[in-house]
Amino acid sequence: MGETRGGKRWNFGANEVVELSCSQNVRYFLNLLADNLDRSDSRPVIPLGHGDPSPFPSYRTDPSAVEAVCDALRSAQFNHYSTTSGLPIARKAVAEYLSRGLTYQICPNDVHLTAGCHHAIDVLMSTLAVPGANILLPRPSYPMYDSRAAFSQLEIRRYDLLPENGWEVDLDAVEALADDKTAAILVINPCNPCGNVFSRQHLQKIAETASKLGVLVIADEVYKDITFGETPFVSMAEFAEIVPVMLLGSISKRWCVPGWRFGWMATLDPHNIMKDSGLVHSLANVLNMSTDPTTFIQGAIPDILEKTKEEFFSSVLETLRECSESCYEEIKKIPCITCPYKPEASMFTMVKLELSVLEDIKDDLEFCCKLAKEESLIILPGRSVGLKNWLRITFAVEPELLKDGLSRLNKFAQRHSKKKQQP
Amino acid sequence: MGETRGGKRWNFGANEVVELSCSQNVRYFLNLLADNLDRSDSRPVIPLGHGDPSPFPSYRTDPSAVEAVCDALRSAQFNHYSTTSGLPIARKAVAEYLSRGLTYQICPNDVHLTAGCHHAIDVLMSTLAVPGANILLPRPSYPMYDSRAAFSQLEIRRYDLLPENGWEVDLDAVEALADDKTAAILVINPCNPCGNVFSRQHLQKIAETASKLGVLVIADEVYKDITFGETPFVSMAEFAEIVPVMLLGSISKRWCVPGWRFGWMATLDPHNIMKDSGLVHSLANVLNMSTDPTTFIQGAIPDILEKTKEEFFSSVLETLRECSESCYEEIKKIPCITCPYKPEASMFTMVKLELSVLEDIKDDLEFCCKLAKEESLIILPGRSVGLKNWLRITFAVEPELLKDGLSRLNKFAQRHSKKKQQP
Repeated sequence: MGETRGGKRWNFGANEVVELSCSQNVRYFLNLLADNLDRSDSRPVIPLGHGDPSPFPSYRTDPSAVEAVCDALRSAQFNHYSTTSGLPIARKAVAEYLSRGLTYQICPNDVHLTAGCHHAIDVLMSTLAVPGANILLPRPSYPMYDSRAAFSQLEIRRYDLLPENGWEVDLDAVEALADDKTAAILVINPCNPCGNVFSRQHLQKIAETASKLGVLVIADEVYKDITFGETPFVSMAEFAEIVPVMLLGSISKRWCVPGWRFGWMATLDPHNIMKDSGLVHSLANVLNMSTDPTTFIQGAIPDILEKTKEEFFSSVLETLRECSESCYEEIKKIPCITCPYKPEASMFTMVKLELSVLEDIKDDLEFCCKLAKEESLIILPGRSVGLKNWLRITFAVEPELLKDGLSRLNKFAQRHSKKKQQP
Repeated sequence: MGETRGGKRWNFGANEVVELSCSQNVRYFLNLLADNLDRSDSRPVIPLGHGDPSPFPSYRTDPSAVEAVCDALRSAQFNHYSTTSGLPIARKAVAEYLSRGLTYQICPNDVHLTAGCHHAIDVLMSTLAVPGANILLPRPSYPMYDSRAAFSQLEIRRYDLLPENGWEVDLDAVEALADDKTAAILVINPCNPCGNVFSRQHLQKIAETASKLGVLVIADEVYKDITFGETPFVSMAEFAEIVPVMLLGSISKRWCVPGWRFGWMATLDPHNIMKDSGLVHSLANVLNMSTDPTTFIQGAIPDILEKTKEEFFSSVLETLRECSESCYEEIKKIPCITCPYKPEASMFTMVKLELSVLEDIKDDLEFCCKLAKEESLIILPGRSVGLKNWLRITFAVEPELLKDGLSRLNKFAQRHSKKKQQP
């Protein structure tokens, strides 16, 4: 503010809070790595940096979902502004979808539709950010939570996910971090970025801990249907009797359509704790001051959720399972990285960088920048998700491309490793 | 925060800033009025409360725009996450669209795509809200600006639009209100809610005043193509040499598709004042922490902007012109309201309520609540747009429905007028 340009004073400028908040953003790092690419390299860029397989043939969304949207659009019934929290038919369809496999039915009035899960995060962090409040976020995490919380000046306290315990929550740390200003704890399950799934027992312990501390659980279940390992997925919704749960999700991952921008928040609150506290009212008011998911996609949602072919889902899951396994196996062969836990869900795995065996690389960011430059391979530095000197690798690309990418990674690692055996 | 429920302390609750911010929201009042409707009234509800004619046959969007979206969707090229500020092809198309009729070309890099204009307002208010900053907003206004500014704790200072001067800006008031913490002035032209269009001379004076004060101009030109009167529309973009301009717009109004959620901000900054100040960088960072417009709509935008039939636009404009005229004429016949200025643009007119001639109605809110209850007619109380004891009437509905609505309004006004002539 108040900068003078050309002898004239202008009363606007950068927003320092914004500048500080977004420094951990995935897109910030992706843009940074893209700037490091060598344009003279004729090989295709291999994007193992973000979880968006939608451009690849093996993940092309089901035509029935596309036609559901075209039908809604052509009906001319859904060009209008949305209503508060979304169209009733879409809220009902999402409530039914989320209730599948649960021991109770979610009420449509408890479902609030959003323009993708990012929008849900935006609205939720804004609502929780009352003066002095803090939030418990995992480390590593999905950094959009960190950015939005910091932007809303909600104090961030980080608890660890423990690689040696299959990336489970360090519950002792959670208890030590919380105080009477701790509004919520974020639990991402299946986990982005670690690729694990929490057991029913562990989820119950989290719920009991949160209840004891008086905090609500934000359950990010964006990857709820993207599981292909041995641990069965259980929704945090099953523990809403113990603790109020704010359930977040979207169609982005299961339908491979992140660009459609359709997500939701469900307030699971059988004892009306969130409702009576005024939180749900404030949440709806923030939604009312905000954008909405595209109306004709809302109009298509009942058909999308009910009529998409099972074969599409099973085919995508099978591809992801194969990719996760080949990724895990190939990583074992690469000298400078180790993967502590075989991924069984989501689109990611976290691997640890052994800097001591590398010759000319000082940290994860330099590793990823040089990798982009020398191999046209994009992998996210761990610092972008809260763990310095780790890497987040996505395996959700075309299987052949993944193979090429891991081969480039191996070559790169070999080339930069200390040459102990040479004379 | 810190409420005790059932003997247990929970650390979350209502957000007071949110609750205070949203009290002037259009949707808040629409929901309130809807609650006043008499469900036993068999007549259809006539919605003259908000500017969304898309459900009516006369405003049904052009099939070519619908097919452009279906084509983009079926191509499977646009299911992916958007890129920062939008896809390059869509930014280029919007830049070309906005440059039509201007004396210079807008650069695609200066265009930032948003999920409708609400999203642009959200992002812009968040970016401008540095500690201590204030913003000049018109009275009457489009209340989303007020809500979002208040929510971001950006101090609001209101300047008047003068009905006796064709709703022109009270520039003396603007000068008196501004100080060195005034970051921006909002100018909505064509005007929601007044239905007027500013002359070139008046726009230039606004630009010169803003420049003198060191504030940027937020030019909301959402209704830029919805003009049907005598004053030709001139874009504030023409005065970017004088003052930095943040141009806001969307396809919602011209294409009658507010539910598609596609809008933009263009930073018109030939002397790099906004850029050098850091504002544009912060704006892009807020966009990066935010949702995006649906990717396949972005993919369709070049065709939508270039190939929509001219007959569609002219037919909609002709309907709006007829509706605005019949609205103006019918209002003359209604005892308790007066319209100071014949609308020549947008979808609204502001009319003044003469409470002295009414028998049993104390203010605009009671007027609108009773009107909803007794006549199943929704009209927005002026307080929702900043002018107590006025009404905002939209004429953008099917012509027959407008006629019915104004007839109900007349009956209501007669019924509630003081009965001077009776014995």
